[in-house]
Order: sequence, then structure tokens, then C-alpha cells
Amino acid sequence: MFETILQNVARKTPLIHCITNYVTVNDCANILLACGGSPIMADDAEEAADITSICDGLLLNLGTLNARTVTSMRIAGQRANALSHPVVLDPVGVGASSLRTRTANTLLRDVQFAVIRGNSSEIRALSQGIGSTKGVDADIQDATTENNLPAAIENAKYLCGKTGAVIAVTGAIDIVTNGRKTHIIRNGHPMMSKISGTGCMLTAVIAAYCAANPDNLLDAAAAAVCAMGLCGELAHERTRAVNGGTATLRIALMDAMSRLDAETLAGGLKLETR
Amino acid sequence: MFETILQNVARKTPLIHCITNYVTVNDCANILLACGGSPIMADDAEEAADITSICDGLLLNLGTLNARTVTSMRIAGQRANALSHPVVLDPVGVGASSLRTRTANTLLRDVQFAVIRGNSSEIRALSQGIGSTKGVDADIQDATTENNLPAAIENAKYLCGKTGAVIAVTGAIDIVTNGRKTHIIRNGHPMMSKISGTGCMLTAVIAAYCAANPDNLLDAAAAAVCAMGLCGELAHERTRAVNGGTATLRIALMDAMSRLDAETLAGGLKLETR
Amino acid sequence: MFETILQNVARKTPLIHCITNYVTVNDCANILLACGGSPIMADDAEEAADITSICDGLLLNLGTLNARTVTSMRIAGQRANALSHPVVLDPVGVGASSLRTRTANTLLRDVQFAVIRGNSSEIRALSQGIGSTKGVDADIQDATTENNLPAAIENAKYLCGKTGAVIAVTGAIDIVTNGRKTHIIRNGHPMMSKISGTGCMLTAVIAAYCAANPDNLLDAAAAAVCAMGLCGELAHERTRAVNGGTATLRIALMDAMSRLDAETLAGGLKLETR
Repeated sequence: MFETILQNVARKTPLIHCITNYVTVNDCANILLACGGSPIMADDAEEAADITSICDGLLLNLGTLNARTVTSMRIAGQRANALSHPVVLDPVGVGASSLRTRTANTLLRDVQFAVIRGNSSEIRALSQGIGSTKGVDADIQDATTENNLPAAIENAKYLCGKTGAVIAVTGAIDIVTNGRKTHIIRNGHPMMSKISGTGCMLTAVIAAYCAANPDNLLDAAAAAVCAMGLCGELAHERTRAVNGGTATLRIALMDAMSRLDAETLAGGLKLETR
Repeated sequence: MFETILQNVARKTPLIHCITNYVTVNDCANILLACGGSPIMADDAEEAADITSICDGLLLNLGTLNARTVTSMRIAGQRANALSHPVVLDPVGVGASSLRTRTANTLLRDVQFAVIRGNSSEIRALSQGIGSTKGVDADIQDATTENNLPAAIENAKYLCGKTGAVIAVTGAIDIVTNGRKTHIIRNGHPMMSKISGTGCMLTAVIAAYCAANPDNLLDAAAAAVCAMGLCGELAHERTRAVNGGTATLRIALMDAMSRLDAETLAGGLKLETR
Repeated sequence: MFETILQNVARKTPLIHCITNYVTVNDCANILLACGGSPIMADDAEEAADITSICDGLLLNLGTLNARTVTSMRIAGQRANALSHPVVLDPVGVGASSLRTRTANTLLRDVQFAVIRGNSSEIRALSQGIGSTKGVDADIQDATTENNLPAAIENAKYLCGKTGAVIAVTGAIDIVTNGRKTHIIRNGHPMMSKISGTGCMLTAVIAAYCAANPDNLLDAAAAAVCAMGLCGELAHERTRAVNGGTATLRIALMDAMSRLDAETLAGGLKLETR
């Protein structure tokens, strides 16, 4: 069902301005290229607006933020809004420090986001001001399970209402909703949690897919979530075949994204829509 | 002999707050996950104390330091001390600039370190105010050899007395000492020096092992040094088998760490204790 | 023809001070080690001069620049000039923002560069104040082709005259000129554009080759361009053989550089000299 989404990415090669953390920034650059987009990183306030203006979408990621980059995020976000470029937020570790929580709230006030993607703890922290964020990974007690899925969906929908954004809550089970229609995705593999940056990379792919499909943000975000999960499954198979470890998984994941086509994606979807 | 050390890491999944350089930060994040820990990077003074409070250990690495991160390091170090979290120092390139030397001295004065790991030039620079640091690699004339090993051990013990920390001097021969008991480790492979970040990654693994074994810092640090060295040996074997180069070695090293178990470690130890 | 160039790199292990972006910095560190050099990254104004003083060459890369690093670049550049160390510039994204253009102009005024390497859009922006930089990749309409090659060479020569530097314009066809003699290089593979950092890495290799061959900058820069292109070709062959994707290409590229010898390079050259 995501043929058009992928065709638009391939046709437009969306250029994504990333203001992101320095931990996984290289992974984000490479996954953007692998998925058919193109990255540019620039975080100085003096050039944030210039750079965003030549791009098709903007990614704001709160990992390793600091006073300098927070300013640049707001400037870039407002310029992207003025130009109607999709702006995607990855609220890494929100809830883990008052700086991150305060910054997220400021950005939510000043910038209109197209999509917000976080793990269950981050999304709970944003929507309810609670959630027991354990660093940058979701706390086990916040994890989405088949049992608490209805409540997790309601929580995501509530954040849609509060922010006007498509909300993607990712983990073992992924939820992507615009408040009216909800995609539930069961692609992925647990070993993905053993490599750094899978969340950040997914948000980058969401930004590329949304920038190429600005009129269909819900499906674009869901397609990106499915693509990343499926690539994780393919990567796990290859890793097991060669008795590899986490670094092999990481290489195989990037390889899979660079070779993914609409047919493979359609064949591997584990998607339910409510 | 390190079964308990590894069991504690596996059981606790220690969360390590890293204030580290932007060159090898991704390697540090991934090796922490591979060795059974979990990373969080945060270097802004406004959140350094918050983040350290939710962690189990703290890693301070002086590579690419700047005025902003130096302040954050002191704040985080003091908070970690107050919470009795092990704090591990990697004095990258100390002796190569007055900024790094001054910063190291300030941190040694204001923060109690559990472990300090450096190459022979860095440890000489810290202990004696001398040593001919050639950038971030040990100078050949400072290298630990079988001939100067007794003197190198004395030098490390002297730095233990000066700092109250376990000292790890790593290179072709590794020394880990608390001033009373000394482990000498001959694991590792010369090709490891041809990839960036092996020292930084080792210090991250030491932080994880120590955070999970706060009552046995000497053995925890030695186990980490052995583990890294052995993984380097395994990686070299695999690289040679596939006619690979330095990038293959790097992947194989991370893979080996993610698959290391106590039995493999025990079988590969090249450890002498004095 | 580049035997002596490579011998000098192997013999001297040139230490390169890099002030570079945080996106591809790890790639730069590893390619420097792979090509026979040694990296040190340091970007604080307080230590920029100290660090450059212990090195053999300096690399300035304008990706993700900010006010803090611009100052450090000028300080390091001037110290390196005073010590007669080759200084190499990578004007990433110049023309894409007024900050980058202004910074490039300031550096060109205050620092004497040995080599400037950019894509065709960046070199046009520097030489003519025009060029339609699309982010960090060359715009299609600026690309060097067999048809516009004579004009592209003239443009590069003009920038030689303006800056006194060897100019390297890289893309599908590469030009390396000192204004009098011009190397045209047709090594490389299109798939290299699908991984982040190939340009940054190439500039790092140029810095290492030039630091080891300060009296023959033109040939040193050309040898580095050939080496990188040939490694890309070898990497593509290996990637295809294993049905790999872009991450496999990246590993194979680094592996090839770490195993490259003068004989392989001589056998694979696609070099024309005018």
C-alpha cells in the first residue's frame, strides 16, 4: 500500500535539514542517503534559517542539546513552518532532565510539528508530564504491550490533539496516529535495541518520507516505521546467518534500507489499521 | 576469574552518563550496548547533574574538550561523587596542550575518580608532569615494554597514591593497579592501533563494568581491559580470515564484544597478577 | 608514478590536526589511520595553536561550523602557516548560507592554503561567487562533464591564481591543478555518492599526503584523489560480489584504503595530465 509514498521519495530525493545530536548524527546522514533522501546538518543560529530554506524538510532531535542548538532549533522550525516544510521532532530523553522537558515544551509552543516520534516513555512524558524515562531508552513499565495497547493508542491520540502532529510511538509494537486513523505496526526485531541510534535513524527516515509526501503525513510516517522495522528483521536474518554481532546488524540494517523497494516492503508489512 | 564481574554487568545493565568527545562518541555508545551496559550522552551544564543522577556511572573523556564541556564535567563529577557512582576518567591527549593538562588537573582536584585509564604518555603526563605526548597516541619512547615494566608499574602506583583511583595504563602491555595489587595483561593485537577509538571504547567498557561492580573496581577494570584485548584478538583473526582491512576489524571488534561470555573470556585471558 | 608520495606517507605517519564537522569526523579519523596518517581533533580556541604545533598538517572543514570553531580555524591556520605546515580547506556547503560564504572568505584572506578541495558547486561559489549549491552535494547543473571540462579547468585555474592554492574539484571527473599543470582523474564510482563523508574523507587523505610531501603538493593531492577513487571502485566490486548495500560499500572503502599499496594504485590509475 505504500508504493506511492516510496515513489515520491525516489522521485524527489528530499533534502533534510537536521539539527541533531552528535552521537548518532552520522547514522542519520547515512540512513537518509540509504532511504533515498539527502542530509544537511547545520546547527548555528546564524545559518539555521538559510539552510532550512534550501531544504524540503526539517528534523529536530533533542539528544545532546545545548543552549546554542535550542535557539537554532526554534529559528529553523519557525522558518520551516513559514515555508510549509514538514518539521519532525525526536524528543530524545524528554523527562530525563528539566532542560529537555523545558526545551520540548518551548518547541511545541513555538513550532508546528508534522510528526513527533518517540519511545513510549518519551511520548508519555510529552502527553502527560509523567513517564519514568530511564535515560534515552523506554522504561520497561512504559512499554507498549498487547494488553495496554488500547490505552497507549488513546494516549497517542491525546497528544495528537494537543500538538496537531501525527504521533509515532515506537517499540516492540509501534503506533502511528493522526487522532482519527491509527496504524499499528509489528515489524522489527528486539536485537535492534542493542545498537545505538535506531530511534534517531527512524525519525530521520520519517522526515524524508514526509518531506516527499507532505499531503499524506500519516501514511508517510507509517511507511517509514514499517520500512525501518522490516529492515531490522532482514538485518537480523543476515546477522544470524553469519554468526555476527551487533555491529554486523548495524551494517546489515543500513544495507537493507539502501536496497529496499516497494515490493519488498509490501511483502513484509505487519500492519493493522484501526 | 571474572565470572561474577560479567554476571553483575548482565544483571544490572548499568546506565553510563558519558561526557565525551564527538570523534568516537558513537563507538562509545555502541560498545556500551555491546558489553551489556546502556549509554546516555549529555554535556550541557544545565542538565549534567540531572542526567548523572539517573545513571549508575559517569565517564569523562577529555578528547575535543571545550570551555562548555569542562564545566559540565565538573558538575557531573561532583554529583556522581555525592551519589557514590563510579567516575572514570580518560585523559585523552593530556600533555598535548595546556588546556588539556590544566583541565585534567582541575578535575583531579575537584572530582574523586574510581578509575583513570590512559596510554603510557598520558599516564606519565598526569603522574610526573612529563611524557612526550604525540597527539592522542602514546609516544614510542613512553611505551610499556617488558624491560621498563617494573618502572611503569611504579609510576602507575604513584598515580594511584596521588589520586586514590585505580590506574589503567594500556598499550602493548596493560597495567591495572590499585597501588597494592597489580594486574598485568598481555591481551590485544597491534592492528587495534589502526582504528580510531579503541582507547575511548575501552574506557567506556571500564565504566560499565565498574558501575556494575562498585565494590571491586580493580578487578572490574582489569576484566574490561582483558575483554577489550581479547575481542581485538578475535577480531583480528576474523579480519585475516576474510582478507579484510581496518574497517572490518572495527566491525569484528564490536561484534566480538556483543557476543563475549564469561567462558570465552576465561579461556582467552593473558593475565598475570603481582 | 605516485610511489614516492606513498613511501613518504608510510615513512612519516603524518599527524593531522583536524577542525572538522561532527557528522563525518569519525570517518575522517579512521581514513587518516587507514591511509597511513594519524589524526588529532581539537577545536577549542584555547588549544588550537598548541595542537597544531605538534602536528604535520592541518585540515579545516566548514561542515557544521559555528562561531566558536571559526575562531579556532583562524588561529590554527595562522599558526600552521607560521610553521610551514600544509593547510587544507574543505569548504563544505559554501554558497548554501551566508555564514559559510563569509567564513570561507575570511579564512581565504587570513590563511594561506596548500590545497582547497570541493565539489563543483563549492569551487564555483568560491571562484565566482556563484553556483547553485544544493546543500552539501554538487548541483547537477554545476557537475563537471566531458563537455564542460575545459571551462571547469579554467575555473579551477582561476581559483589557483586567486588563492595560491592547489585546487581539487571532485565529482564524476576530478580536476587537480596548480594553475600550470593539471591532473584529470576518472577513478571512482557513482555509488560513492550514496554514503556520507566521501568528500570529507578525501580531503583528510589529501591533508595526510600533502603533510608527508610538502614539496610536491600537486602530485600529493592528485595521488590522494586517485587513491580514494580507486578504493571506491574496489569497494563497489566487493559490495556487488556480496549483494551488499551502502554500509557494506563504506566498510569496503575503508578496508581498501587500509590495504592500498603503490603497486595497486599504479595499476588502477585513470589519470590524464595536461
